[in-house]
Amino acid sequence: MCRMKLYSAQLSGNCYKVRLLFAQLGLEYELEEVGVIDRSNRPELLGALNPALRVPTLVLDDGRSLAESPAILQYFAEDTPLLPEDKFTRAQVAQWLSFEQYEIEARIGLARFLLEISPVEPPSMGFVTYLQQGGRTGLEAMEAHLGGGRTWFVDDTYTIADIALYGYSHVAPGAGIELDPYPNVLAWQQRFREQPGHIGMMD
Amino acid sequence: MCRMKLYSAQLSGNCYKVRLLFAQLGLEYELEEVGVIDRSNRPELLGALNPALRVPTLVLDDGRSLAESPAILQYFAEDTPLLPEDKFTRAQVAQWLSFEQYEIEARIGLARFLLEISPVEPPSMGFVTYLQQGGRTGLEAMEAHLGGGRTWFVDDTYTIADIALYGYSHVAPGAGIELDPYPNVLAWQQRFREQPGHIGMMD
Repeated sequence: MCRMKLYSAQLSGNCYKVRLLFAQLGLEYELEEVGVIDRSNRPELLGALNPALRVPTLVLDDGRSLAESPAILQYFAEDTPLLPEDKFTRAQVAQWLSFEQYEIEARIGLARFLLEISPVEPPSMGFVTYLQQGGRTGLEAMEAHLGGGRTWFVDDTYTIADIALYGYSHVAPGAGIELDPYPNVLAWQQRFREQPGHIGMMD
Repeated sequence: MCRMKLYSAQLSGNCYKVRLLFAQLGLEYELEEVGVIDRSNRPELLGALNPALRVPTLVLDDGRSLAESPAILQYFAEDTPLLPEDKFTRAQVAQWLSFEQYEIEARIGLARFLLEISPVEPPSMGFVTYLQQGGRTGLEAMEAHLGGGRTWFVDDTYTIADIALYGYSHVAPGAGIELDPYPNVLAWQQRFREQPGHIGMMD
């Protein structure tokens, strides 16, 4: 029987979210590491699987492909405790998945890529500052939501919303954003790392 | 009985996606227009409803709030033809919703905001060029996916994936991105506008 195959980049927070979910669900898969700097082989490698040519791209055990971390997280977490069944609760999880894509990944993830990963100079430092400010606004929203004693982001239960939000928020220092002003976020990240089956981004 | 209330900005593609879905589903709601330039009243207006202080923010008829267009689209399209029931099909819809947030909204939407809406100068034109290039990459992925005779993005049926992708792709010229190089996208946009119950962004 064919196993699932995940096209993944170790440094990508989006790929890390999927790897962490699979680790915590005990799902087996084959991993193919894909470069994030030289992308010249992506049309050949991913063209038939994902028109966006991005990772994570997953090939299911029946050969069908699925991309984008929020879609993969929701697909595999369904019918597990990581995605409660209640319709409104699932909508709240989707809300945080979307928030993360726009406010955290597209700001912190991109600033980190420009500062720490890409060998090319950022188009301007004003751009990086703009992204950092956006990332801080996102972290402030997370800090406010966790305030008042929340343990996890949705329904006080560990869900894929937490996995998604951890992916790039925990590498904010790589984007030039220190996390000290966000004590609720730091405490939540510590709780997150203590969950059974946790793996780190570089594991 | 209380009606739903949508905090919305007319010029926001994300709010437009929700307004269009509600029009096509025949859902009634109260609309409150929220400014996108002066955001000083947002903590008071939205603080208790959405920690991200962004629109769209929806208050359901039972008083609970839900934000982020992908979450609202998925919540209301469930059990309608706009979101097929099959689990893998729903995952493909989620894939395109996520793609749109990162590749289209965060590029085309942001470039359009900086060029056409914000009264403040962009942090740099290099930044705008970077966003435009990202937006073109996203449009190329859409063009490639529609190639080979696809009518709609998922399962050749009109879904919320199409609604999400239309939201900002149809205003790409406002971001300085002409759509002529993407004939499949243009033809799909025309089909999209011919769907029953369609409304335009400024309607």
